[in-house]
Amino acid sequence: MIVVKGGVTMAKGFLASGLEAGIKKSGKKDLALLYSEVPAVAAGAFTTNRFQASPVKISKLHIKNKTHQAVIVNSGNANCANGKTGDRSAWEMACYAATKLGLSEREMLVASTGIIGVPLPLNRIKARIGDLVEGLSGKGGENFAESILTTDTVKKDFAVKIKIGSSIVSIGGACKGAGMIHPNMKTEGHHATMLSFITTDAAISKKMLEASLDEAIKYSFNMVSVDGDMSTNDSCFILANGLAGNIKIEKKNGEYKKFTEGLKFLTGRLAKMLVRDGEGATKFVEIDVVGAKTKEDACAVARKISTSNLLKCAIFGEDPNWGRICAAAGASGVEFDPDKVDIYLGGIKSLSNGAIAKNYDKEKAREFFKTKDVAIRVDLNDGKASAKAWTCDFSKEYVAINSEYST
Amino acid sequence: MIVVKGGVTMAKGFLASGLEAGIKKSGKKDLALLYSEVPAVAAGAFTTNRFQASPVKISKLHIKNKTHQAVIVNSGNANCANGKTGDRSAWEMACYAATKLGLSEREMLVASTGIIGVPLPLNRIKARIGDLVEGLSGKGGENFAESILTTDTVKKDFAVKIKIGSSIVSIGGACKGAGMIHPNMKTEGHHATMLSFITTDAAISKKMLEASLDEAIKYSFNMVSVDGDMSTNDSCFILANGLAGNIKIEKKNGEYKKFTEGLKFLTGRLAKMLVRDGEGATKFVEIDVVGAKTKEDACAVARKISTSNLLKCAIFGEDPNWGRICAAAGASGVEFDPDKVDIYLGGIKSLSNGAIAKNYDKEKAREFFKTKDVAIRVDLNDGKASAKAWTCDFSKEYVAINSEYST
Repeated sequence: MIVVKGGVTMAKGFLASGLEAGIKKSGKKDLALLYSEVPAVAAGAFTTNRFQASPVKISKLHIKNKTHQAVIVNSGNANCANGKTGDRSAWEMACYAATKLGLSEREMLVASTGIIGVPLPLNRIKARIGDLVEGLSGKGGENFAESILTTDTVKKDFAVKIKIGSSIVSIGGACKGAGMIHPNMKTEGHHATMLSFITTDAAISKKMLEASLDEAIKYSFNMVSVDGDMSTNDSCFILANGLAGNIKIEKKNGEYKKFTEGLKFLTGRLAKMLVRDGEGATKFVEIDVVGAKTKEDACAVARKISTSNLLKCAIFGEDPNWGRICAAAGASGVEFDPDKVDIYLGGIKSLSNGAIAKNYDKEKAREFFKTKDVAIRVDLNDGKASAKAWTCDFSKEYVAINSEYST
Repeated sequence: MIVVKGGVTMAKGFLASGLEAGIKKSGKKDLALLYSEVPAVAAGAFTTNRFQASPVKISKLHIKNKTHQAVIVNSGNANCANGKTGDRSAWEMACYAATKLGLSEREMLVASTGIIGVPLPLNRIKARIGDLVEGLSGKGGENFAESILTTDTVKKDFAVKIKIGSSIVSIGGACKGAGMIHPNMKTEGHHATMLSFITTDAAISKKMLEASLDEAIKYSFNMVSVDGDMSTNDSCFILANGLAGNIKIEKKNGEYKKFTEGLKFLTGRLAKMLVRDGEGATKFVEIDVVGAKTKEDACAVARKISTSNLLKCAIFGEDPNWGRICAAAGASGVEFDPDKVDIYLGGIKSLSNGAIAKNYDKEKAREFFKTKDVAIRVDLNDGKASAKAWTCDFSKEYVAINSEYST
């Protein structure tokens, strides 16, 4: 596997575009289109929030179609809590784009991100769909990745190339954060306003694509948290158009494993890019829970620690207040013996068998907390399962960004 | 029922004291003692965190005793994650105070609050226990309430007087917050570093006292959140010494109901004082969920909304971004129909049947958000159950306080 630059237009046959439609007050790019020159199979994972944005409802319906060829996305407006009008707008947005592309509406997927409870400016979107289609290009990945951003400070996209049989298969992706990030997506039948768009030229059946996406998001997007707030719009799409010419993956064989490994790498890295650019983030934090009885236990403990406001404030302040790690782990609902727990801050053992480690050096720990990447390891010493969660610190800037968002 | 000034020394026969033992670097009061002149029955509710501070372990053991006469408390150190040494320190703290008071160790309860993972300075505590006992006074409630504080900016105590039969019964209490507040306490056989100490001169059996405390904390302390972080030290104690001379409450009769109503009022108001003084808080927020299928559903939705960092930042910024209420409600795990949900900001309907309410006036909403007390009501229109949760806003000051705590 090699990592390459490029994003959603790296795989053969994919075109993309992005432009300003006037949805964002800032005047930045806010409308994007992704297109496969040939019919592709698609899988999607969507937020498990009971409040689901209108584009999520439409995409959950359309994803049942056998083939898909395009995805239209807007930023600057979530089109959520807009009632029947919102549902109709999301559907019309898909229909308009489909018509311009000569597709049926069912071959079109749709996503939105931005403020909740403000009517989608559908006319502005419609007015630019023609330009969006005309702008489609094999070099459009960058425009696409920029147009889907909201409070993000950098675009997040890259691609990998893997060898399957004698064929070179590309998988590329782009995603956006950067707040209301605590995805728990499920593919339909799955679990993410993180938006993620992945393209591949692999030849793979829809069923295997769904299975592979399921495996990939479980320990990537679904294990990152910026603020603990699950969005109404989280969506992750993958389109596979078969142009790489590999022998079609139709069962969980060696080729499936290879493909899934590539996809896992891609989603894992995209997920980390997402928290690294979390709202107000100054630090990247990895929480590695080992020695758990079950994978579910390890995930639950890691995820709970990743959402501790207190720990995240301490990390912002570069204060090695690891007691907050104990408190968060203990609040996870998972049963473990506190007297067996070890905690490591980087290589520094701070807690040993539930008590302060001998030779714990607070000054060394303080130095470690000054690094940009903070790695925390919790060993429950209770089994062999492990899991990682990723988050960022909690800064005054996060509060500033989110106290003024809708105004 | 009448509300009166005073706290833990309002009820007959209760004495208290508080002083500086040098546990806090600030030199503020940090050691407190509560004492009943006659044997009392006691009930306790403790954190459900798997990591339990040493004083919690000792109190959970001692609370099984038939009678109790005193509680010793320190602030400035949580005595948590201190291993066997910590357990022994908590036990010795209780033993020392018991001996000075002429009690058996089992009649003594103990609590701590402060930083986790720093050895308890037991010698400093021991050195002042004599003064603490000598200082016991019927006017010591105020000293007690001050000595238990950590990042709190004001002491929190008051009392009520209720008539049970022909007797006047007093119930007084003191509590402290102000961070790591998301209690989920359970009395032993229950569910809160919120510490709360309640005294009453009611004559009541231990069993009925436990039942009454259970009822009282469920919809008070266990429904407040400052930061979503459950503590390792949350403890709530109640001592009842019978000196009011009422006919002893031994079953769930009319007198039990009257007593429990009084206790509920007390814990409810103490809980609200706690979030009003939450770390960095500039606003008090009440979330009222109505129209739920079950009480559990209502509680889960209310509590999830109360922990939304995004909503709390919006409230700090006085920005009526109610879409974040939808997202939080939908992330609660409770099943409801989003298309039936109404949301009110004070008297202003913002969401009606899952979509922006007609005539919603954002400017009016903005005005409403400028008040110190923000009342949010969510009607699921799905049943008759309701529940309230209380929180504060999320300010830059919260981040400032918690990024520098241990240094």
